[in-house]
Amino acid sequence: MKEIEKLDKDYVLHTYARNYVNFKKGINATLYDDENKDYIDFTSGIAVCSVGHGNKRVADKIYEQVSNITHISNLYVIEPQAKLAKRLAELSGYDIRTFFANSGAEANEGAIKIARTYGETKFANKRYKVITLEHSFHGRTITTVKATGQSSMHQSKFAPYPEGFSYNHTIDDIYNSIDNETVAVMIELVQGEGGVQPFDKEKIQELAKFLKQNDILLIIDEVQTGVYRTGEFLASNLYEIEPDIITLAKGLGGGVPIGAIMTKHKDIFAPGDHGSTFGGNYLVTTAALEVLDILEEVKDSGALDETIIYFNSKLNEVYENNKEIFTANVGLGLMRGLRVKDADTLALLIKTAFDCGVLVLKAGKNTMRLLPALTISKSEIDEGFIRLQKALAKIKA
Amino acid sequence: MKEIEKLDKDYVLHTYARNYVNFKKGINATLYDDENKDYIDFTSGIAVCSVGHGNKRVADKIYEQVSNITHISNLYVIEPQAKLAKRLAELSGYDIRTFFANSGAEANEGAIKIARTYGETKFANKRYKVITLEHSFHGRTITTVKATGQSSMHQSKFAPYPEGFSYNHTIDDIYNSIDNETVAVMIELVQGEGGVQPFDKEKIQELAKFLKQNDILLIIDEVQTGVYRTGEFLASNLYEIEPDIITLAKGLGGGVPIGAIMTKHKDIFAPGDHGSTFGGNYLVTTAALEVLDILEEVKDSGALDETIIYFNSKLNEVYENNKEIFTANVGLGLMRGLRVKDADTLALLIKTAFDCGVLVLKAGKNTMRLLPALTISKSEIDEGFIRLQKALAKIKA
Ligand SMILES: Cc1ncc(COP(=O)(O)O)c(C=O)c1O
Ligand SMILES: Cc1ncc(COP(=O)(O)O)c(C=O)c1O
Repeated sequence: MKEIEKLDKDYVLHTYARNYVNFKKGINATLYDDENKDYIDFTSGIAVCSVGHGNKRVADKIYEQVSNITHISNLYVIEPQAKLAKRLAELSGYDIRTFFANSGAEANEGAIKIARTYGETKFANKRYKVITLEHSFHGRTITTVKATGQSSMHQSKFAPYPEGFSYNHTIDDIYNSIDNETVAVMIELVQGEGGVQPFDKEKIQELAKFLKQNDILLIIDEVQTGVYRTGEFLASNLYEIEPDIITLAKGLGGGVPIGAIMTKHKDIFAPGDHGSTFGGNYLVTTAALEVLDILEEVKDSGALDETIIYFNSKLNEVYENNKEIFTANVGLGLMRGLRVKDADTLALLIKTAFDCGVLVLKAGKNTMRLLPALTISKSEIDEGFIRLQKALAKIKA
Repeated sequence: MKEIEKLDKDYVLHTYARNYVNFKKGINATLYDDENKDYIDFTSGIAVCSVGHGNKRVADKIYEQVSNITHISNLYVIEPQAKLAKRLAELSGYDIRTFFANSGAEANEGAIKIARTYGETKFANKRYKVITLEHSFHGRTITTVKATGQSSMHQSKFAPYPEGFSYNHTIDDIYNSIDNETVAVMIELVQGEGGVQPFDKEKIQELAKFLKQNDILLIIDEVQTGVYRTGEFLASNLYEIEPDIITLAKGLGGGVPIGAIMTKHKDIFAPGDHGSTFGGNYLVTTAALEVLDILEEVKDSGALDETIIYFNSKLNEVYENNKEIFTANVGLGLMRGLRVKDADTLALLIKTAFDCGVLVLKAGKNTMRLLPALTISKSEIDEGFIRLQKALAKIKA
């Protein structure tokens, strides 16, 4: 056993089936382990490292900020936090206010608190039920575990859970399960953990319209889809809907822990209703401002769209060349999946790809997921897919 | 209205009654606003900036780390995370494993999930009830809001909450409210938000002994008391108890968002039972390792104990000289409070102190709370108390 493996196993609570490669260095979408072997990273920390590893612009801003003020409390105004909130409103095009949390789960907790507040104050009878989808993922707190539709997630050992969550199989099913206590529908527009499953744009628009007419809130969990992952700033922009609440995390800070709850119900909370010690501090909001500057440039210059087209053409080649292994090519933007014929083959493929020097992820039961940095270079894409093809050749041999 | 105030009010969800001073720079326990006015910071971001503002050693480590790798996912081992977990075991002296979260609330969510897992797997009947104290504070997620004993916190608008939480007034009351479904007692050793209320050491030791005998878990929420705040690494060390679960956050990273769940139930979770995207990433664990190095030096050199003695002698002077305003001097280590005769006087004092250039906090109904950086200098302490005395003279005039 490697020393690092022993250290981890001895002292860290076992909650992941870890790969014990020890990454020491990162440059954009390339990682180097302790033997200086390089890997093309098609995972970016599960959609977190949106501007790549070791991004110099973000590192410099972080250094400037932490040499100065890392954190004060939210009892005092925090200038980069206010600026970031403004940026989110501008980039999204929505008339919203934002609260900053520290993760996707915390952002979704805030979204649920907002929805329930709406449900209690806006109607004669209290509305509190939130409908989610079966293959959704919303986090690991007790309430977001319950909100998560995957039944393997809300194990009885963590019970009792809060009441008021139910799950539908499809978007179409949602209409029938709404009752007069339903306050919100919470969905991802492309299910990430569930298997890189994008929903039909027209169906989502219809649902949004129906919910608006019936004064039921639409919460879009953009923890994974947000911050240009699908090609637009928000997947909600791509789908041309105006949700009541949108949550962000992952890609927003390029690796610093940050979550955001954006809502058009701007006066839903009063002082004291919600809070967070770290949420929106100088460090994380300064980092996020720089990440957004970089990504806006990448988008506005046309580079992001080019990268998406290039990445997906290469991905499609691999898909077309290996139809005996892949059954479908799914996803949006740089949130991509190839369905693999069975879970064992997927597990073997992820392992073999790793050995060949390219990192890919599992999603759902049998989807190989790719979430590269939005700044991935053409040569990194080329090299990554060469290695992936090599891995495929190996497992077919 | 200042520009920054307008920006904040327009774009940030209103959840704090903010002070609109705009801090631009920090050096140890001194902050500077946009007009270069200086303030002695007796708050350290509510016990977060344990090694002061702009700490150069931490900033340099952070820069080195983020220039390289900020984040990968927990699917791969993270060397500084494993090292930090080992450090926590060593410094605490307990035989434990750690899971890393992103905040105090997330750490407590994890603690509750561990306790409930224990309660389901260890007994013939499921045990799931957690007893907390009336003036406790455990976080802002729906479950930790419910765990929080302050009844103003679990407002009906956020309901339904998960079942299984009840509150006791005192430590003595806990014994009578335990039943055969009680799985854990969760307390702070010094209640922070509740009013800087330390509990009696003997009573805590008795409780710990009783719980152990009855196979009920003791969860100590050290989100505020942990990481040398009370003078020892953990308040649990000071109280000489061995809790089943200890949670940390605030001071651990010196300002980076981090939480930790330490437990001696090392095999309670299986892969998949819990997780976090950002939790324990390269950035936050590298920062925390440096914070711990600094604080261990400060402790071992005797400087921390000296600072505690000096700070408290100055605090006591102010207390003794202003008995018409203060009714008690409470706290442990550098977690201090002076009870103020009434809430209005406290509000006026905090405002006047701010005007005089020293930052202090409110806790509970009528406690002026002081949580300075553990690295605060003698001259900062002197200056801070001169300013506080000036403020007191003003409000008495
Ligand atoms: C859609 C979605 N929501 C919420 C979360 C939870 O985010 P976090 O792990 O930061 O709590 C995730 C994480 O994978 C996610 O993909
Ligand atoms: C004792 C205690 N527990 C938990 C929390 C919640 O921590 P956070 O705000 O990081 O979620 C706090 C915050 O003040 C606290 O003092």
